[in-house]
Amino acid sequence: MTVAETCALAKKNACAAANLTEEARNRMLTLAAQALCSRAQEIIKANEKDISACTRGEQFIDRLRLSDSRIAEIAEGLTQLCALPCPAGEVLERYQTENGLDISRVRVPFGVVGIIYEARPNVTADAIGLCLKSGNAVVLRGSKDAYFSNAAIVEAMKEAWRQGGFACEFVQLIEDCSREGAREFMRQKKYLDVLIPRGSAALIQSALENSTVPVIETGTGNCHIYLESSALPEKALSILMNAKTQRTSVCNAAESLVLDESFAQKHLATIVSALQNAGVEVVGDAAAQAICSAVSPAEEEDFFTEFLSLKISVKIVRDIGEAIPFINAHSTGHSEAIVTENQEHAERFLREIDSACVYVNASTRFTDGFEFGFGAEMGISTQKLHARGPMGLRELTSYQYRIRGNGQIRK
Amino acid sequence: MTVAETCALAKKNACAAANLTEEARNRMLTLAAQALCSRAQEIIKANEKDISACTRGEQFIDRLRLSDSRIAEIAEGLTQLCALPCPAGEVLERYQTENGLDISRVRVPFGVVGIIYEARPNVTADAIGLCLKSGNAVVLRGSKDAYFSNAAIVEAMKEAWRQGGFACEFVQLIEDCSREGAREFMRQKKYLDVLIPRGSAALIQSALENSTVPVIETGTGNCHIYLESSALPEKALSILMNAKTQRTSVCNAAESLVLDESFAQKHLATIVSALQNAGVEVVGDAAAQAICSAVSPAEEEDFFTEFLSLKISVKIVRDIGEAIPFINAHSTGHSEAIVTENQEHAERFLREIDSACVYVNASTRFTDGFEFGFGAEMGISTQKLHARGPMGLRELTSYQYRIRGNGQIRK
Repeated sequence: MTVAETCALAKKNACAAANLTEEARNRMLTLAAQALCSRAQEIIKANEKDISACTRGEQFIDRLRLSDSRIAEIAEGLTQLCALPCPAGEVLERYQTENGLDISRVRVPFGVVGIIYEARPNVTADAIGLCLKSGNAVVLRGSKDAYFSNAAIVEAMKEAWRQGGFACEFVQLIEDCSREGAREFMRQKKYLDVLIPRGSAALIQSALENSTVPVIETGTGNCHIYLESSALPEKALSILMNAKTQRTSVCNAAESLVLDESFAQKHLATIVSALQNAGVEVVGDAAAQAICSAVSPAEEEDFFTEFLSLKISVKIVRDIGEAIPFINAHSTGHSEAIVTENQEHAERFLREIDSACVYVNASTRFTDGFEFGFGAEMGISTQKLHARGPMGLRELTSYQYRIRGNGQIRK
Repeated sequence: MTVAETCALAKKNACAAANLTEEARNRMLTLAAQALCSRAQEIIKANEKDISACTRGEQFIDRLRLSDSRIAEIAEGLTQLCALPCPAGEVLERYQTENGLDISRVRVPFGVVGIIYEARPNVTADAIGLCLKSGNAVVLRGSKDAYFSNAAIVEAMKEAWRQGGFACEFVQLIEDCSREGAREFMRQKKYLDVLIPRGSAALIQSALENSTVPVIETGTGNCHIYLESSALPEKALSILMNAKTQRTSVCNAAESLVLDESFAQKHLATIVSALQNAGVEVVGDAAAQAICSAVSPAEEEDFFTEFLSLKISVKIVRDIGEAIPFINAHSTGHSEAIVTENQEHAERFLREIDSACVYVNASTRFTDGFEFGFGAEMGISTQKLHARGPMGLRELTSYQYRIRGNGQIRK
């Protein structure tokens, strides 16, 4: 099938996804989870085919590799979705106009969600589960490197549904994994209601450049921790170390440390020493170097970089009035935190920082659908249109106005 | 100033728009309305300069032309915005997580709204008013044909604010009205948070093709009126005539009539005669022609066309089961109506039609921000991402998570 034909097939079957009962959705999630486990050996065999054809590095292959335990985790994720209610159908508001029109605004599924992602086969099952639970059809365009793994996962889930007597054609996997196929996918506006790229900055940039389908931009996080002069040193260090080192390869990890000069004078040496003991490379501006000689010189570019590794940039500011514009100018709009005991400054930071998630006295690592209590996550939006921050089931819906009249015409 | 410099200036001043008090916003709207009236002669002179340079047709010039009364209307629109509350700042939800994080989701302005539009100078003042009231900075890119009119309107408003001691640089008008300038504008992702194209299908298509800024697609309406077999003939005729003929050049006017065969057998002749008496050209499929010889043959293309004129396409269907997929396959997702006395069919139509606004027994002409009670309108979204249907002040906002902790770190 061509890319367009695959998308058209999903659209044709979108109604089937939207009209399922809650009971049917949960039954399908359970069947899919069981099928992944019972067909784990087949899936692992397909995965081995992908791995043996793959010429990429170890880290890449590590993300691609499936095992019994990883498949069990993926299946567990599907099962957990059963506990969450489908958000579609909720009446968001209902009112009467003067001429007697009864207007309701009702939450509805998007229709067809397109997902383009890299060589992480777990995304395949996750995305199908989230779309099923939110009432959406889904077209998956995974990486060529994971094609056999993805196909095996999709086939296991769909076959379980077929046997259970359920519709399954609202889930489609693109066969054409070429670069041209990706571009074509991004232009299926006729069939896709939204496109969600999940993966590297390059992939997301390509979607922004090429897509005619509305895109939800996800993921890049140049996150800042700002230690204000009133911060308690222990709390500051604990939050910073957690945000920078607990897991470095994720978008909600800290990449930049901003300190009030007065706080830095007293505490920067201790902080840098703790960071370096944890293996973190510390680069900073001239002021930071002057205060602490263990800080290496930073390039201007470092302050714009999401390192995703054991490296951090340090910037010294006079006060919050200088910190906020610095952060707004360098952040990617993901997550930023202030550590402070000054209530007024805390509230100012919350109000004036232009990011999806703004924290007072907590680690940026909490920006996550599960941590926020959504029970599931489709990614973290860094744009302002539609959804911002962690996206769960609710963020996979749109709304529709339903208007009931008794013959009203416009004067 | 280059396009990028102009957008950067708006972004730099976005904070000023966001931080205004409600009182300041209203004072600014009032000052702007007064300035437009008191400087009407200047604005009309600038408008005449545009008109005398314009080589386009009469209808085009009619939309471009300003007069004292049109300027007074525009000013009145600004004044009316004073009565509406700024939506920003609303706490949409607030909850505590198990580890004690206090999470609130707060409505915030987009930041910088980009508007690209055609030669309707009234859009200039409308858009500025809506952005001011919703807390946004705005960059306007009007048509070259209306440049002097737009510049005069913007200057009158900004000068009034300057004299009143208010900030005004959060409103910017692009000077470069070339085609290349438009493309450049659509790529100012660094400075614009959203792009709203207002105007022809060609303009909207160009934004979808070229923009890296998230776009809200507005306006195209191939709206359907479906007369189901149980429809009361008088009610049906009244709604149809209103939707087709009350104003033909607007996106919520009907362009296609779908009838159950049994209803058509009895009433199509009367309906076609009423349409033709009102000057409407009626084209239809073979079944419609067979039932009523006054119906001319339709091309397949007619069923996909937004005529925006006194023309309508007619399609005969067996029943609602055939009507719904036909409408979903041909509509632009704007507004569709069923006329029926069958409650079950009414509810099925509401549920299964995939459009922004779905009506039972009322004219599609009600799809409008004012008619919906929003008090103002920025356009009508036909996409599902972010906003759907009429967009008022609320639809010009995003949200932000504000998280208050006391030292929480992630385990």
